Amino acid sequence: MTEPDPPRVIAFDGDDTLWHSEVHFQAVQDRLRALAAPWLSGDELDRRLLATERTNLTHYGYGVKSFALSSLEVLLDATDGDLPGPAIAELLGMAKELLDHPVELLDGVVETLDALAGRVRLVLITKGDLYHQWCKIEASGLGPRFERTEVVHEKDPATYRRILTELDVDPQRFLMVGNSARSDILPVLELGAQAVQIPYEVTWAHEHHDGAPHWPVLERIGDVLAYASALPEATDRR
Amino acid sequence: MTEPDPPRVIAFDGDDTLWHSEVHFQAVQDRLRALAAPWLSGDELDRRLLATERTNLTHYGYGVKSFALSSLEVLLDATDGDLPGPAIAELLGMAKELLDHPVELLDGVVETLDALAGRVRLVLITKGDLYHQWCKIEASGLGPRFERTEVVHEKDPATYRRILTELDVDPQRFLMVGNSARSDILPVLELGAQAVQIPYEVTWAHEHHDGAPHWPVLERIGDVLAYASALPEATDRR
Repeated sequence: MTEPDPPRVIAFDGDDTLWHSEVHFQAVQDRLRALAAPWLSGDELDRRLLATERTNLTHYGYGVKSFALSSLEVLLDATDGDLPGPAIAELLGMAKELLDHPVELLDGVVETLDALAGRVRLVLITKGDLYHQWCKIEASGLGPRFERTEVVHEKDPATYRRILTELDVDPQRFLMVGNSARSDILPVLELGAQAVQIPYEVTWAHEHHDGAPHWPVLERIGDVLAYASALPEATDRR
Repeated sequence: MTEPDPPRVIAFDGDDTLWHSEVHFQAVQDRLRALAAPWLSGDELDRRLLATERTNLTHYGYGVKSFALSSLEVLLDATDGDLPGPAIAELLGMAKELLDHPVELLDGVVETLDALAGRVRLVLITKGDLYHQWCKIEASGLGPRFERTEVVHEKDPATYRRILTELDVDPQRFLMVGNSARSDILPVLELGAQAVQIPYEVTWAHEHHDGAPHWPVLERIGDVLAYASALPEATDRR
């Protein structure tokens, strides 16, 4: 196997790569389980919610508002339409808390980006609700470190192809760094670009990927520096 | 007053400029009024919904899902938390209908874009929910007519400045075409760029602008051709 070319562009995923996200969703889902306990077991709530979220993806797309509307649908169904007002109010409150949650960066993010600055072009590619992602980028303070920030509605090969074209970079010289095999790795490899996975402590069931990874897996974001050690100094940036 | 320079880039708004949107929201709001009639007058529903939507903008941003969550909050409050399940189910159904509504282009859109093609760079700048806007762009079939499509979470001067920079166009050579004074005209004029308004048949209360326009107002999209008649032929495109 030949060594990959040193990347000219390194793109980072946002949720669960640069900042915590899924732990906050899971904390809210725990509260949702408690809220639904009079009508559903925890496992049944999880099962129905995942199925409803998946069905609703074509209507709603990703994000907290979609999660809230799907949760409401599950609870309404579980109670045969007799859902108490306080439960609805609590659900709406949980959604707002989740949307307004402070952004917490993962360890080593700032140091890693600072060490890469000037050596490669840095890009942020994050999936989900436009407004919420924009709020998180603002709150993270990381925006100015990136040449470009892209909020996309789906991370599929077509989306990555468009971005690579707009960045005017060869796939071989593009490296994607992210936690999700389904969103950050597989569609990127499909284009002949490079990708490394940094698994997060928890994974949303929808993003689960079966099978052993046939791509590089790193433990923490700081490991990207060693991985990309063959990077040029701050010249020849295209 | 001197004549403006012929534009090199013409950017079009999406909702209520290229395709119908607000009429569909208003139709749903009529149904919401009927749904709320046991507890609220139509006027009171409108008033509370606008106030709630405005308060929730900082949590939710724009779009149908935000509208649905705010409507739910209004109904829950109006019923002192005793909102019947069928009303909630109807509300969720209305949101999905609105999201899945077929895209209907305004008269003259395709002809106008075709007549402009090759003479100026064409761009689409639309505000709102990323996934829903993306669905509408896809369904409209208009995507390939634009050099670039931008879904933004807010149309303020900073957003337009970023786009102009990325397009590498002087403000004086950029023309925005849209229905909303607040979103499509005023922030663009503030940058020293050009803007023409084509009012839509109805305007969302949040987008209302008081005061006489001090900018060009056209009756229909086809009038952009005469307005931009000084456009160069298909050369010198930057």
